[in-house]
Amino acid sequence: MKETDVEDYLKTLQDKICLAIEQEDGLGKFQEDIWEHHSGGGGRTRLIQNGAVIEKGGVNFSSVQGEVHPRLRKQMNLGENDDVRFTAMGVSIVMHPVNPHVPIIHMNVRYFELNDGTCWFGGGIDLTPHYIVEEDARFFHSRLKSVCNDHHPDFYPEFKKWADDYFFIAHRNETRGVGGIFFDYLKPSTEGSGKNLTKEELFAFLRQVGESFIPIYTSLMNKHKEDSYSEDEKQWQFLRRGRYVEFNLVWDRGTKFGLETNGRIESILMSLPPRAQWEYSHVPEEGSWEAKTLSLLKKGIDWV
Amino acid sequence: MKETDVEDYLKTLQDKICLAIEQEDGLGKFQEDIWEHHSGGGGRTRLIQNGAVIEKGGVNFSSVQGEVHPRLRKQMNLGENDDVRFTAMGVSIVMHPVNPHVPIIHMNVRYFELNDGTCWFGGGIDLTPHYIVEEDARFFHSRLKSVCNDHHPDFYPEFKKWADDYFFIAHRNETRGVGGIFFDYLKPSTEGSGKNLTKEELFAFLRQVGESFIPIYTSLMNKHKEDSYSEDEKQWQFLRRGRYVEFNLVWDRGTKFGLETNGRIESILMSLPPRAQWEYSHVPEEGSWEAKTLSLLKKGIDWV
Repeated sequence: MKETDVEDYLKTLQDKICLAIEQEDGLGKFQEDIWEHHSGGGGRTRLIQNGAVIEKGGVNFSSVQGEVHPRLRKQMNLGENDDVRFTAMGVSIVMHPVNPHVPIIHMNVRYFELNDGTCWFGGGIDLTPHYIVEEDARFFHSRLKSVCNDHHPDFYPEFKKWADDYFFIAHRNETRGVGGIFFDYLKPSTEGSGKNLTKEELFAFLRQVGESFIPIYTSLMNKHKEDSYSEDEKQWQFLRRGRYVEFNLVWDRGTKFGLETNGRIESILMSLPPRAQWEYSHVPEEGSWEAKTLSLLKKGIDWV
Repeated sequence: MKETDVEDYLKTLQDKICLAIEQEDGLGKFQEDIWEHHSGGGGRTRLIQNGAVIEKGGVNFSSVQGEVHPRLRKQMNLGENDDVRFTAMGVSIVMHPVNPHVPIIHMNVRYFELNDGTCWFGGGIDLTPHYIVEEDARFFHSRLKSVCNDHHPDFYPEFKKWADDYFFIAHRNETRGVGGIFFDYLKPSTEGSGKNLTKEELFAFLRQVGESFIPIYTSLMNKHKEDSYSEDEKQWQFLRRGRYVEFNLVWDRGTKFGLETNGRIESILMSLPPRAQWEYSHVPEEGSWEAKTLSLLKKGIDWV
């Protein structure tokens, strides 16, 4: 398999996901921006706004080339004179729904290749309900566990824990949502966390993660899009979106990397919600659904 | 002069500023939270919400003690076994007004002391108009220049440039607002950027910066609080507040330091606006006040 196989797959994935979201939404349509990156490559940014179900969402494809960033050179023990160029490609998705009972979702699937032949896969998918419904969290994790188990028995437990640790708002001591899976540096064969899988096998895993998005999210959209909600519940959604902003701007490595390396700002920050609020020392009423949600925003819950 | 002199001054400053804001607002009242820091000391957090002029604002005093943070130890060339404790105290203010024609303001005045006797002053004050009014920017900078000039002729040019560089949203390539002054590590006598001023003289400068807040901001509140504004102008305010969030969470050293060192989160994040919005690739109409404002969000403008 070649680099272009991954690229072709990712573009097709982007197309399919946009189509499925539009169909389930029934109103919103994606608009597309094609852009080029200053050091090579570029992307296709697709945005949906003011849909019936999705208030603001992005499904971005990008494939960029460039010199390896100094920080990564150091991690990789490269000399200063080694001429190492990278290709990084991926599809990134964040959906902010109108209805506070439809969860926010995020997925990223990505592939890196260096000109010395080193390559790895990475990605993740996590769910951020404004109101946690345990049945939904169980459904979500069951689907991911089943995807992982088709490829390696260690994948789900390891990647589930990785997601708990990654999607964590340390300064609030709360997880972003109910987690999901996160993985990185999956290298073919004996290296890294790839569990002796070949490049083809890892690519197959990545594809299955990618394919899981549509059935998972369209079913959650469908289940909750007609749920009634109050003005208070909408307010709570704005506060939870504030936390989403805090995670993305303070802790998300991908966002920070993009902002520090002169990436395309509007595509990187498409993950931010259309509207967010902050309220000083907000404490939900004891016994409320909001309080219950907060109590479940912690690491190590075995949802399955 | 003693540490307690600075502490007493800062508390009095907090009291006076809260009173002056309440008077100019005419409706909002500050609520107070007293808290203790896990490693020593604590603070008085004061919040005003839903006033006639101020939608959300904080005037915080804190004085905390603790072990010097590893990063600072390194900067200071301290050995691992040196037992160095610090006292850090300050007043921090951010005001988010209701009316988009009243600017956001921020001020911080602070004092650090180590148990080896080293001490320094720091601070800053900067203005973030949602709509830039050149006359206001000139007034603001003239007042600050006059404060600085009373203490050292280099202060205004140096601290004005420091503010341009500090209050800069690098990933947007725009300044947060029209700047102001920023200074740090003002050490008595020959060390650092203190220009051979004594500790008493530096403290006098800090006090004059602190005293400048009330006349500056109450006059801007008063000048613009009755300005009429449209729904579109309110929307623009929400977008500019989004930029304020980006600066504070991505770039502001004070915020990052607080979040990484287990500070009191609700006091640190009081600087965030009550409501902010993000819109993909928003470009204001050519020739509009919004476009003019964007064009003036750059470093190096000599407002005086």
